[in-house]
Amino acid sequence: MEAGTARERFGAARVARLATVGADLRPHVVPCCFVLDGDTVYSAVDAKPKTTLALRRLANIEAHPWSSMVADHYEEDWDALWWVRVDGPGRVVGDGPERDHALGLLTAKYEQYRVHPPPGPVVAIGVETWRSWP
Amino acid sequence: MEAGTARERFGAARVARLATVGADLRPHVVPCCFVLDGDTVYSAVDAKPKTTLALRRLANIEAHPWSSMVADHYEEDWDALWWVRVDGPGRVVGDGPERDHALGLLTAKYEQYRVHPPPGPVVAIGVETWRSWP
Repeated sequence: MEAGTARERFGAARVARLATVGADLRPHVVPCCFVLDGDTVYSAVDAKPKTTLALRRLANIEAHPWSSMVADHYEEDWDALWWVRVDGPGRVVGDGPERDHALGLLTAKYEQYRVHPPPGPVVAIGVETWRSWP
Repeated sequence: MEAGTARERFGAARVARLATVGADLRPHVVPCCFVLDGDTVYSAVDAKPKTTLALRRLANIEAHPWSSMVADHYEEDWDALWWVRVDGPGRVVGDGPERDHALGLLTAKYEQYRVHPPPGPVVAIGVETWRSWP
């Protein structure tokens, strides 16, 4: 697929899956909501920061920043399948202007966040490579 | 969610996302069709084995067997969201009885494979842990 189409499909997707690597060198993958801002992907940690699930993703990025996130489309007509993957270093963004900016974008994309603003830090991935199929 | 529900939802999902770790310690994530057989997850490499994309997943598993696969449900009513993740060591299964067994199960689940049987090896993940949310 063309680069513009890949960017458009990825940006419009409502959910993607974020893969990180832990200090134990094991992969971790979790579905998440996200927003594409230029070549940065922001996603919020929905759960409170103290929960184990949220910490795992954040601890992984601290240990091994490089992250991979895929958005895809599935239907039973396999001629219509596609996926778009972005890869690059991740950062955990705590309180401050960048988190506020990211939350503004996330809330503009997901009205659900207006009622329940995500309380934790934000994950930012600086996209270095785009891959797509077909 | 209860263990039985997690297993049922995971097994019935039509697509999941497989995360592996490369020799370069970077995560890799790709959507894939799969079938649950007891505590083993089988997925086929749809593309021809020689293509780069297929090789990446297989090379990763050879380098770092531990794999993670998540199936999830997304809809705009966030009260209905769920995911189920399985983790365990992966193996690349070439020609032989286990591959035949896996392809039989995959073809029973996906009629699409009847027309286009996957030509490459099969990935088998021996599930050691189940995680689910909520």
